[in-house]
Amino acid sequence: MNRSMINLTRGVPPPDVFPVEDLIECGEVALRRDPAILLQYNQGGYAPLREWVADQHGVPPEQVFMGNSSLEVFSFITQVLVQSGDRAFVESPTYDRSITLLRRTGAEVVGVSLEGDGVDLNLLEAELDRGAPSLIYLITDFQNPMGVTTTLQKRERLAALAREHGLWLVEDSPYRRLRYWGEDVPSLWSLAPERVLHMSSFSKVLAPGLRLGYVIGPQPVIAGLSEWAVDSHIGPVLPTQGMVYEYCRRGMLDSNIERLKEVYRPRLDAIRTALENHLPEVDWTDPQGGFFVSGFLPEGTDVVDLRARAAEMGLKLSDGRGFFPNPDDGRRFLRIPFCSLTEEEIREGVSRLARLMQEG
Amino acid sequence: MNRSMINLTRGVPPPDVFPVEDLIECGEVALRRDPAILLQYNQGGYAPLREWVADQHGVPPEQVFMGNSSLEVFSFITQVLVQSGDRAFVESPTYDRSITLLRRTGAEVVGVSLEGDGVDLNLLEAELDRGAPSLIYLITDFQNPMGVTTTLQKRERLAALAREHGLWLVEDSPYRRLRYWGEDVPSLWSLAPERVLHMSSFSKVLAPGLRLGYVIGPQPVIAGLSEWAVDSHIGPVLPTQGMVYEYCRRGMLDSNIERLKEVYRPRLDAIRTALENHLPEVDWTDPQGGFFVSGFLPEGTDVVDLRARAAEMGLKLSDGRGFFPNPDDGRRFLRIPFCSLTEEEIREGVSRLARLMQEG
Repeated sequence: MNRSMINLTRGVPPPDVFPVEDLIECGEVALRRDPAILLQYNQGGYAPLREWVADQHGVPPEQVFMGNSSLEVFSFITQVLVQSGDRAFVESPTYDRSITLLRRTGAEVVGVSLEGDGVDLNLLEAELDRGAPSLIYLITDFQNPMGVTTTLQKRERLAALAREHGLWLVEDSPYRRLRYWGEDVPSLWSLAPERVLHMSSFSKVLAPGLRLGYVIGPQPVIAGLSEWAVDSHIGPVLPTQGMVYEYCRRGMLDSNIERLKEVYRPRLDAIRTALENHLPEVDWTDPQGGFFVSGFLPEGTDVVDLRARAAEMGLKLSDGRGFFPNPDDGRRFLRIPFCSLTEEEIREGVSRLARLMQEG
Repeated sequence: MNRSMINLTRGVPPPDVFPVEDLIECGEVALRRDPAILLQYNQGGYAPLREWVADQHGVPPEQVFMGNSSLEVFSFITQVLVQSGDRAFVESPTYDRSITLLRRTGAEVVGVSLEGDGVDLNLLEAELDRGAPSLIYLITDFQNPMGVTTTLQKRERLAALAREHGLWLVEDSPYRRLRYWGEDVPSLWSLAPERVLHMSSFSKVLAPGLRLGYVIGPQPVIAGLSEWAVDSHIGPVLPTQGMVYEYCRRGMLDSNIERLKEVYRPRLDAIRTALENHLPEVDWTDPQGGFFVSGFLPEGTDVVDLRARAAEMGLKLSDGRGFFPNPDDGRRFLRIPFCSLTEEEIREGVSRLARLMQEG
């Protein structure tokens, strides 16, 4: 048996999927064509890319804000829309850094349990009765960390609640285009464009090192974010925006996404099969895309103890507590990213995990 | 006479100085050599560039923090070191966006008059008696907007005050290497490395569109900034850091700076001569480098009125008020950036300004 460490923590693309030569060529072409723009100060990013993103979403460029990563975009959103003392709702569990950014503003971050079909709406409405938040942060497709996709029914109800209470839904959607089976569910943004800020990025569909994220939303909010950004860094890094624009302009993004799906689909297949075979007692989530599958391990499991024993066995596991606004809720939670592992690593990793659970 | 608009407001490099082909080649080489790093998530930026910057300053890499522009770096500094209700001192006038970022934290921004040889130390000490700030923000070389360089005597006194009061000096130094005459003055950072955060960037010596800034400082502060950055954007944009590293590794930065000085030196010469000839009644600053010369126009001048009349004459002037914590102090202040204008444009621009003043 191969005893080299298997890492079940890294929610990142494997480096061998990056289209290196295409990006080099596109970067060169863009910089030679438009050096006086791409090497100069700017506000609002590279206009042709902004227009391309706008076109993709069927909105005017004034409804697109681009930043150095979607995390930066969310940081600006929290700074512009959330005041100290406000409430902010998130799915529980959710992306750990989004919790951190909301707390930085001085907001009270309220976690609402995420179920297999989206956030628990009864709990959400009960929390709304206690006090409406300035925003609800949701990862509607192939959620990080759970892998869950919110159903259309729940999306429609969320859209209605946002209208009713005049609050913002921030829909973070970096995995949306990485669907390996099944049909797209309409985005929250398509259901309530006047109350939704729809975030995405090029990290999962092209390369994270580009740090290129964006948000689509109502023009006044986008204008507020743009102004905030000018005072924060004047404008985003431009030569990489030129590179990405040229890549998209040539129509290469769609085929790249198809290629990524061919790589990732069998990996999701492999981990589902391995988990069913080796750990059927756990109620694993059943994603149709994205980067993550997850589950709550049996009662009595403690992630701290488990991780220590896993390390001895050549297995690196994530600490689930960071994904929960109330960390204790995550003591039995395990997120397994599968995209950066080969099918063989997946099978061996899950096999080790199963032995670990039996010994526990 | 040429009636095309002459813009005396843009403190940016002229686009024809960007070394486009060299940057294209360096970007290509870097990305081909290190794609798995430069296209992936990262924390702390591209390690070889960080080491190169560290070497240049004779410090270990742990004393370097790199961000997407030095403005972003300063934004993080204010968020990590300044609390709401703190005091923060700046030169008056100073870079307008730095005032904005300090105010965002909820700090009281106190402007201390900048004289021809640096900040007024009597006023500074009087303000210190009223309450020490968490930091003093200073642009010691070829200051923006005044063009003034702080003397060694004043730097030594500032260093002593920082030690005495246990406060941070943030030395923003983007123009330092663009000295057209005379001798370098030791940086504040060299005089008190334990109390100084020394910021710089590649915007003025290479290209602003790269948005690549950094700060040198004591390791614990750098560690705090690094942690803050990870939660803010995970890591900075990387392919451009690879490009800049390759450019620097090849020894091209020094010769680029020499080339820039050959372009900018005659422009500073031209504006000094033009101002002496046409507007001798104004006490213009006398910079030996950088991007700006400035002066207070005669009593009775009002910048709002002046700008309106200038526009009719084909001259665009900046509104000096934004550079002052107390905007009214800037009603007669005029900043003139000279690097992005040809010598002919400079002569014609100053000639129009002189006519404007005569008519006023």
